[in-house]
Amino acid sequence: MLEDLKKDVHRANLRLVESGLVVLTWGNASGFDPESGLVVIKPSGVGYDIMKPSDMVVVDLATGRVVEGDLNPSSDTPTHLEFYRNFKGVRGAVHTHSIEATAWAQACREIPCYGTTHADQFHGSVPVTRFLAKEEVEEAYELNTGRVIVELFRDRDPLAQPGVLVAGHAPFTWGANPQKAVDGAIALEAMARMARLTEQLGRTEPLPDYVGEKHYMRKHGPNAYYGQKK
Amino acid sequence: MLEDLKKDVHRANLRLVESGLVVLTWGNASGFDPESGLVVIKPSGVGYDIMKPSDMVVVDLATGRVVEGDLNPSSDTPTHLEFYRNFKGVRGAVHTHSIEATAWAQACREIPCYGTTHADQFHGSVPVTRFLAKEEVEEAYELNTGRVIVELFRDRDPLAQPGVLVAGHAPFTWGANPQKAVDGAIALEAMARMARLTEQLGRTEPLPDYVGEKHYMRKHGPNAYYGQKK
Amino acid sequence: MLEDLKKDVHRANLRLVESGLVVLTWGNASGFDPESGLVVIKPSGVGYDIMKPSDMVVVDLATGRVVEGDLNPSSDTPTHLEFYRNFKGVRGAVHTHSIEATAWAQACREIPCYGTTHADQFHGSVPVTRFLAKEEVEEAYELNTGRVIVELFRDRDPLAQPGVLVAGHAPFTWGANPQKAVDGAIALEAMARMARLTEQLGRTEPLPDYVGEKHYMRKHGPNAYYGQKK
Amino acid sequence: MLEDLKKDVHRANLRLVESGLVVLTWGNASGFDPESGLVVIKPSGVGYDIMKPSDMVVVDLATGRVVEGDLNPSSDTPTHLEFYRNFKGVRGAVHTHSIEATAWAQACREIPCYGTTHADQFHGSVPVTRFLAKEEVEEAYELNTGRVIVELFRDRDPLAQPGVLVAGHAPFTWGANPQKAVDGAIALEAMARMARLTEQLGRTEPLPDYVGEKHYMRKHGPNAYYGQKK
Repeated sequence: MLEDLKKDVHRANLRLVESGLVVLTWGNASGFDPESGLVVIKPSGVGYDIMKPSDMVVVDLATGRVVEGDLNPSSDTPTHLEFYRNFKGVRGAVHTHSIEATAWAQACREIPCYGTTHADQFHGSVPVTRFLAKEEVEEAYELNTGRVIVELFRDRDPLAQPGVLVAGHAPFTWGANPQKAVDGAIALEAMARMARLTEQLGRTEPLPDYVGEKHYMRKHGPNAYYGQKK
Repeated sequence: MLEDLKKDVHRANLRLVESGLVVLTWGNASGFDPESGLVVIKPSGVGYDIMKPSDMVVVDLATGRVVEGDLNPSSDTPTHLEFYRNFKGVRGAVHTHSIEATAWAQACREIPCYGTTHADQFHGSVPVTRFLAKEEVEEAYELNTGRVIVELFRDRDPLAQPGVLVAGHAPFTWGANPQKAVDGAIALEAMARMARLTEQLGRTEPLPDYVGEKHYMRKHGPNAYYGQKK
Repeated sequence: MLEDLKKDVHRANLRLVESGLVVLTWGNASGFDPESGLVVIKPSGVGYDIMKPSDMVVVDLATGRVVEGDLNPSSDTPTHLEFYRNFKGVRGAVHTHSIEATAWAQACREIPCYGTTHADQFHGSVPVTRFLAKEEVEEAYELNTGRVIVELFRDRDPLAQPGVLVAGHAPFTWGANPQKAVDGAIALEAMARMARLTEQLGRTEPLPDYVGEKHYMRKHGPNAYYGQKK
Repeated sequence: MLEDLKKDVHRANLRLVESGLVVLTWGNASGFDPESGLVVIKPSGVGYDIMKPSDMVVVDLATGRVVEGDLNPSSDTPTHLEFYRNFKGVRGAVHTHSIEATAWAQACREIPCYGTTHADQFHGSVPVTRFLAKEEVEEAYELNTGRVIVELFRDRDPLAQPGVLVAGHAPFTWGANPQKAVDGAIALEAMARMARLTEQLGRTEPLPDYVGEKHYMRKHGPNAYYGQKK
């Protein structure tokens, strides 16, 4: 069942480790198949070195129930499902505790756009959620984490802002497929580090808007001219 | 004698190097076998690249005397023994001078819990000892280092707070077996770095308690649901 | 056509990745052949792991038009061409978003010469451009990026100051051939990091001029005695 | 001639690279043979990847003249020779521009002893030289660099304080043989980083003397008990 997507999700999880974003088992990637309404996700707490594509767990989009697989899905599964249920066009998602992005999340701060590296990847600041309330934490915590993110994106375009910082927790990123969600996680970590160093060097004013717009649009706009013809 | 534990302790020592926690020979791991009352520990000042499982030294829990092995045990052996004599359920211990955790130890500061990465691993702040007194340093220094740690844990649960910073020195971690003590050392280094960067980004308030409790409990509490069924 | 230069440019691009200067596909190197008036450059947005020497794109110096190659050239091609059209003796150029140098570019700050590491490589501070005006960004952005750099170097010697920070963007470096431009990018990243840490340790006064002059001259002056006889 | 020492010095130079202390060709190691009065040192500006033991250059202690070898010796040779002429028992020396130690050198600051990692390696603060005067720079610069270091060590024990920061330049380390000088360079980089982070975390008071003395003495004193019997 969904063997190609399992391979893709397995590969996405390994890329997180190869990219240095994951300490121990703190990270997971998933992929969504809209036709079947199924989501493929990493098993919970399994070492990356022994994990095989066939260990990926298949769950149902609506209920989160395991449809195939012997292992428990990632404990963050309910958060991933909220993205696929609410973000149109999103078919891959990633969660890590990568150091620099997590530091911004712990500081409860948006990452301002200080340069074109950021603008190339992300439209505007990387937003940060509110803290969950006590009741939201105690009951259905992982689902509510997803809901708080979706709430923050009510008036945002998730494909133009393909990631978020959860206050006191860590980043999530997403994209049109699992590999793009991984690319987003790698980019976010670099953006977060550059932004911290920029402030250390004394800058607190963001990039002029017209420069950011240009960079974002030349890569993602209707007349994008970056990369190869698709 | 204790060949499996020697392999395990050897492997734990190598993992410290692979994880980037050890510079030169500044680190050691040990394991405890409660049935025989013996402890297996790294030899002192031996290069990791030439060290074999059979080089691990076996010492007596009560006296610290070498029971098997041609090499001197780590000079930190008396500290490790104090853990096994006093911390119920602890069967593995690790000492490193990993950079970020050591910086907090040198700064004589507890590491506050700024986020869920920390809360997933450790219940509350990572405590820091007092400095040893002059007499405690001059006589039986390594034993007294262990005693100062045990003193700090009089009213703490060592398995819920599986590590400590020794003021002006460096971290120790421990756990139910040597590999868990290594996991703890890896996690502590990441937590220490994240906490430093969080403060650099302007945050000095810790994570709300109810979020930390949730994360700790979903992984370590009686109803833990993280990972696979045991 | 220009097979040796293609191999050289290909190799230069790979060295950027091996040196840790490139995240994802954020970097490019080019080389100039003055005899034919042609420039060889990396294709746009192609993965380094699958890129072959034959994928390098050949463009015309004067017009930027593709002379050979099936892929689009780097979107930064017009910037590179400005260097070759205006900087005498420059035959290699590199652009990266390396973290430390980019942080200085985002902070819109020159990198002061705080030590001999810097003075060995670069004559004086590493300059930073002005921001491009709105019209310069909206029309012929990449060409205007090159023009703003050339404007800054009107009274400078590009071979004595073989690099620049573009405000809000990232560094460019150049040299007598593509490998020297890569060396310059590697050196710039180290200089940028050292300068940031020097300021963090409390120093804001640059190296005395007579020390910097000596270091620059023993390596690059008419009586240079560093390295081997050429 | 001195084939063993050449191999040892070659290996020491490669270890500098493997340890991440060297960017491009910014580093060199040498060794001294007191019986013949000859010094073996790395050639100047040669890539580490192509360097062979037989490329090491043999020079005369008193005059610095090349006794064997086709390549120019490191331009820092006159500095190394000053150590061997003046520091009793020193038979290996290393120079790098490693990032963290160089930042302290550029900041013209001693590295205070903030913890036992430092005390295990080095007796007291790591000293920093004065700036060379203009005349000292313009004439016999590298020799005068050595002289300024030797001047600073007039009342110091070079084997108890096996390294120095040259103001505005970078570190030198030394020891009883080339490998110990490399160990010292690796240790110094870690000490420098830990000290910077300790200050960032708010500590400016050094380690109590009695703790530092204990650590230094248990490893290097007459009754040292660290490591294996020699």
